[in-house]
Amino acid sequence: MPELRQNIATNEWVIIATERAKRPEEFKKSKEKTPLPEFNATCPFCPGNEGKTPPASLIISDGTKWAVRVMPNKFAALSPEGDRVRKFEGIKRSMAGVGIHEVIVETQKHNITTALLPEDHIAKILSAYQKRYQAVSQDTRMELIILFKNHGEAAGTSLEHPHSQLVATPIMPSGVRTRMNEAIRYFDVNGECVFCKMLQEELRMQERVVLETDKFVSFIPYAAFSPFHIWTLPKRHTASFGEIAQNEITDLSVHLKSVLGRIYHGLGDPDFNYVVRSANANARASDYFHWYISIVPRLTKAAGFELGSGMFINIALPEQSAQFLKNVSVPK
Amino acid sequence: MPELRQNIATNEWVIIATERAKRPEEFKKSKEKTPLPEFNATCPFCPGNEGKTPPASLIISDGTKWAVRVMPNKFAALSPEGDRVRKFEGIKRSMAGVGIHEVIVETQKHNITTALLPEDHIAKILSAYQKRYQAVSQDTRMELIILFKNHGEAAGTSLEHPHSQLVATPIMPSGVRTRMNEAIRYFDVNGECVFCKMLQEELRMQERVVLETDKFVSFIPYAAFSPFHIWTLPKRHTASFGEIAQNEITDLSVHLKSVLGRIYHGLGDPDFNYVVRSANANARASDYFHWYISIVPRLTKAAGFELGSGMFINIALPEQSAQFLKNVSVPK
Repeated sequence: MPELRQNIATNEWVIIATERAKRPEEFKKSKEKTPLPEFNATCPFCPGNEGKTPPASLIISDGTKWAVRVMPNKFAALSPEGDRVRKFEGIKRSMAGVGIHEVIVETQKHNITTALLPEDHIAKILSAYQKRYQAVSQDTRMELIILFKNHGEAAGTSLEHPHSQLVATPIMPSGVRTRMNEAIRYFDVNGECVFCKMLQEELRMQERVVLETDKFVSFIPYAAFSPFHIWTLPKRHTASFGEIAQNEITDLSVHLKSVLGRIYHGLGDPDFNYVVRSANANARASDYFHWYISIVPRLTKAAGFELGSGMFINIALPEQSAQFLKNVSVPK
Repeated sequence: MPELRQNIATNEWVIIATERAKRPEEFKKSKEKTPLPEFNATCPFCPGNEGKTPPASLIISDGTKWAVRVMPNKFAALSPEGDRVRKFEGIKRSMAGVGIHEVIVETQKHNITTALLPEDHIAKILSAYQKRYQAVSQDTRMELIILFKNHGEAAGTSLEHPHSQLVATPIMPSGVRTRMNEAIRYFDVNGECVFCKMLQEELRMQERVVLETDKFVSFIPYAAFSPFHIWTLPKRHTASFGEIAQNEITDLSVHLKSVLGRIYHGLGDPDFNYVVRSANANARASDYFHWYISIVPRLTKAAGFELGSGMFINIALPEQSAQFLKNVSVPK
């Protein structure tokens, strides 16, 4: 019998399609990828081609050369100039596309992925996220800052060189506002952060926990919307990613390498997205929201049903998927 | 300068990315598809293989053989048996996966698509939608009925034989509820249906209308979330698809063939989804909602930004896309 599950934090339902469920190992990609070169002379993110992109807004060095380089996106979806003035003209409601759109080039190496980078290098990427998040937070025109990574074509990337992106929007997207409202409502009714509650309960039950380290916990949510969808939460209640502490960055670099390594080795380097979900840039301290990283391997495709209902059909059992990932051995 | 646009009916924002926008003709697929056979002996939807699927719940005949065949999905995401009883166990909220999941096999021909079917055959498909929608509406356990089609691999289909699907869910997905609430709010403030308003204004402005026939209008919404995303609305205010009249089915068959034909011929048979958005199955008469078909060619991929923000970046200008489709000549 299929099961409907509801996520206690978002109130979204998902169909766990037991009748068409696959075993965890069936999701492993068998196709070999064509190996990439370590350097590609035509890649705008490779070293030596820095002139092909806008000047850096942040450089994190390894002592001799840049280790992580952040710059405005050359083909930015939003423009940093201008004011957020709304225009109303009959049914047409618009605003100038004011915003920030930056690229975080994660390494000089063209052909590597996060799971294979050294932990201290991942810490540098996370520091770049933190510094740019904090800097962009100062811009009072911005309502929301999204940090995300697209790995592989199915995840929507167009450039294979390892990179992530930061986008700040001058409006609060309605989907994000809904999530915030749900968290507020839970807090009003229960007097506690719903994410803290989930974290405690997942640690107690140990059915869906993939990894626990000193400062972070990764689990597959009870109502995960797609196979191997993972939430990585800081144990300390903090609403905004901008509040991440140095010792959390250090722990997260170890944690993230391990979780992404389990996906890489256990599922055969599938395409994936991750996104940092954080409270509104201008609402740093809050009791009800709790930032986290949502990791989504792209193993299935959303189709008309998802489009029409906003609801997903998950063909993997969260408990089985979590046990599988927990047991993947990641080579050192 | 990029532009942010807000859909007046859903209150969702979209980024119209002028800096990276493509011209309409650049979206045309150049890759030739491998032609399919008219009959495939291993296809469960081809004639002669009816025994490989569950017994039909509806057959529409062409006089001698079935023209459209509806049956339960053999690998149903939801099961018709059982009651919608919610279970609460700490943070685990669930319900038995009660629901209806049917397949509408649209034709005996394995290798055709809606745009190339005769109009009277499309009318038969629409009649099957109507009859099953009305029948499933009688089941008071069901909150929402979604009719949808996945055409092509990028649109999430696994079987190439032309078919669509009906899914009825025992809960109201939160995304659909939000849309309903937005429509109610607009009605409360303005005393009119927001979709009727959009329809009138789009007809008056004629900037984004793709096609108008006697009973239906297709336009690209001002805040379309992806390239060539089309809304097809009945001119008559009706909240539920179940209320569609016979003369509307006849007009819609002509209308839909033309609109899908413009996509087929103008964009080179891209993969696409369409979905019928309709008021809740148990709320048939309503002033504030207006059913429509949302057609989404799959020309771009949602990535981390869309995942994190729930907001889309559209790299096609709605006005240009609409003019392009309006001018596509569809061979008779």
